Amino acid sequence: MLKLYDFLESGNGYKVRLLLRQLGRDFERIEVDILEGESRTPEFLTRNPNGRIPVLELDDGTCLCESNAIQWYLAEGTDLLPDDPIERARVLQWMFFEQYSHEPYIAVVRFWVFAGQADQHQDEIPARMKRGYEALDVMERHLSHNRFFVADRYSIADIALFAYTHVAHEGQFDLSPYPALRDWLGRVQAQPGWIPITQA
Amino acid sequence: MLKLYDFLESGNGYKVRLLLRQLGRDFERIEVDILEGESRTPEFLTRNPNGRIPVLELDDGTCLCESNAIQWYLAEGTDLLPDDPIERARVLQWMFFEQYSHEPYIAVVRFWVFAGQADQHQDEIPARMKRGYEALDVMERHLSHNRFFVADRYSIADIALFAYTHVAHEGQFDLSPYPALRDWLGRVQAQPGWIPITQA
Repeated sequence: MLKLYDFLESGNGYKVRLLLRQLGRDFERIEVDILEGESRTPEFLTRNPNGRIPVLELDDGTCLCESNAIQWYLAEGTDLLPDDPIERARVLQWMFFEQYSHEPYIAVVRFWVFAGQADQHQDEIPARMKRGYEALDVMERHLSHNRFFVADRYSIADIALFAYTHVAHEGQFDLSPYPALRDWLGRVQAQPGWIPITQA
Repeated sequence: MLKLYDFLESGNGYKVRLLLRQLGRDFERIEVDILEGESRTPEFLTRNPNGRIPVLELDDGTCLCESNAIQWYLAEGTDLLPDDPIERARVLQWMFFEQYSHEPYIAVVRFWVFAGQADQHQDEIPARMKRGYEALDVMERHLSHNRFFVADRYSIADIALFAYTHVAHEGQFDLSPYPALRDWLGRVQAQPGWIPITQA
């Protein structure tokens, strides 16, 4: 059976967990307490030398890392990843946008709050929040004339961007100026098989 | 003809430029001076609302963004992107590693030096360099028992990681403690059709 090394509060872990549920795949979830350094133990580093969750372990022991790469692997051949070359490039485009222009700001500020580290990072937070809002601006502009990120249908690009956007308020981001984005959050939550981030 | 919106010193632009050359594809290169804000003009934002190069414009005007997503689009069906699902996931895994754990440290410090902004960012540089060396450590460990990043052959994963690693010294990174990595740089530079980053 597939094994998912996960951390319940992690949006990156949640992407894969949500996708597995929506695809109806059975898996064993293994909680890795990243706050206690459990993703940096010598044993864990044999699964991911970069010391991060999520990791998906296949039946033969092969370990795949990086949330969006794992999503691509699992979604290939399903309705959650289009077949058209341009649409596939767009899915990747939004997933790279998420990891480069969104996650380091929105997820990281939320993590600092969650881990009780906001005080020690207070000098960095204003710049991170500015960049986070810039990412939300890009999303709002796109969603003001698109129902989903790619090809007018729900895909792993939506999962990638939903994961940390829907909990952005936990990092003190205010989503009230983003009506199209909030409507999209609702459309994602209405998808069959959707589970909240707190559900194992 | 394909149009590549590029900036000669950019590793992200170089990834696509190098790949196009190695695939023997004709293209028109359009220099965008990011230091002068040319990637943030209203006209450029119609091509990439996130205000970044590279952008690949297809014959019908479709614009693709994010260097590694563009690479995937161009390399599909060629020898530079494997067919096997696990190997494809590994290519993506290393490309997401590059954008999340490598580029924000190694490329950004180099950019600050290049743009004459090292003084104004001096407080941030030690932490960025530490994370950059952590990325190089992960690469060295992998390359100590692999000739290339995926499937024992040159692929777009190598291009993605080569782009900023081979100019890391321009950000004051010292590659002398990384013998396997330096051997791999040589193997990439020996590939047919390789061009230096300074070559349009």
